[in-house]
Amino acid sequence: MRVVVPFDAAAPKTRLSEVLSPDERSAFARVMLDDVLQAVWNAGHTPEVLATEPLGSSRPVRVDERPLSEAVNAVLAEHDETAVVMADLALAGADTVERLVGTPGDVVIAPGRGGGTNALVVRDPAFETDYHGVSCRDHRRIAREIGADVRECDSFRLATDIDEPADLVELLLHGRGESAGWLRERGFELDAGDGRVGVERS
Amino acid sequence: MRVVVPFDAAAPKTRLSEVLSPDERSAFARVMLDDVLQAVWNAGHTPEVLATEPLGSSRPVRVDERPLSEAVNAVLAEHDETAVVMADLALAGADTVERLVGTPGDVVIAPGRGGGTNALVVRDPAFETDYHGVSCRDHRRIAREIGADVRECDSFRLATDIDEPADLVELLLHGRGESAGWLRERGFELDAGDGRVGVERS
Repeated sequence: MRVVVPFDAAAPKTRLSEVLSPDERSAFARVMLDDVLQAVWNAGHTPEVLATEPLGSSRPVRVDERPLSEAVNAVLAEHDETAVVMADLALAGADTVERLVGTPGDVVIAPGRGGGTNALVVRDPAFETDYHGVSCRDHRRIAREIGADVRECDSFRLATDIDEPADLVELLLHGRGESAGWLRERGFELDAGDGRVGVERS
Repeated sequence: MRVVVPFDAAAPKTRLSEVLSPDERSAFARVMLDDVLQAVWNAGHTPEVLATEPLGSSRPVRVDERPLSEAVNAVLAEHDETAVVMADLALAGADTVERLVGTPGDVVIAPGRGGGTNALVVRDPAFETDYHGVSCRDHRRIAREIGADVRECDSFRLATDIDEPADLVELLLHGRGESAGWLRERGFELDAGDGRVGVERS
């Protein structure tokens, strides 16, 4: 199945600015992207990066400057069956991608924490995305309106987009790709001192 | 399979004190407990509440005043196969419980956000729990030390214990039991005003 991985190359991961410099955020975003692409490859599928600008690397990239929903909808229009997996799902492994892609349904939604849509499978040509706002709720509604069979892919690994400092805890605890090692190399470790687990940087 | 549901009856849900009164927190904790018990029943299993004191209701309760890990270990010692599901996993439905219980392995861990162990299946008599600290990491280590085959149950619904105000967002968005309705009846609704979704109480 074609798996599209949208990537915002311009100003990635601004909510990590407390703990990472701009250059580090840019590098970290690319390491996470590579983990996601590797997971898709390992699951036997072909990832395609959908980026707002060229990434200056050997990664195959489709460049589309439009807002996320429009750019994704243009890809959906070209294929009968497409998965959309966000580039910061650094906990996802091949088994996670396999479960997503293996979930039946015209529209499969893997909700993210806080109402997002972290991964989607679309098998109905009438479905269009709308990532603005509480998108998992909106995507359920859009799917119902077109009479699509909507299913959920219930995954902690897909629900956890790495977006803010608290999410780094999850990556250090559960990451199986390069991103967790990248963090450790830069001095990040778990801080379980006061009962609630956090991260600290040495 | 026997499914144990530990419940702290004394001072439940203190981290919700910003948004719920003590009486409300106590009632809310019991509504969530009932949702979890219903999910276990609907999955075809028999729940047993493991509480620190009697609940004063018709629910079957095993009372054990010891700390959580000791009380759970006493139950594990009595059975070849036991699941342990926390009482605040109000997003769990029958399908969630079925997937947990259906995951093979001597020890199956469903991690919670922040390093917890929100649900467990134990099929090795040598395994003992230690819920203090970063328990999902400790449980993996304990299982490895006894040579047990450790598996993960990757579930957003099991990872989401309803503990603090931000978690109420998830319950309002994804809850399928009574707990979400209980919140709505008390004026809670999603607040998606400023881009990041939260809850507000009218």
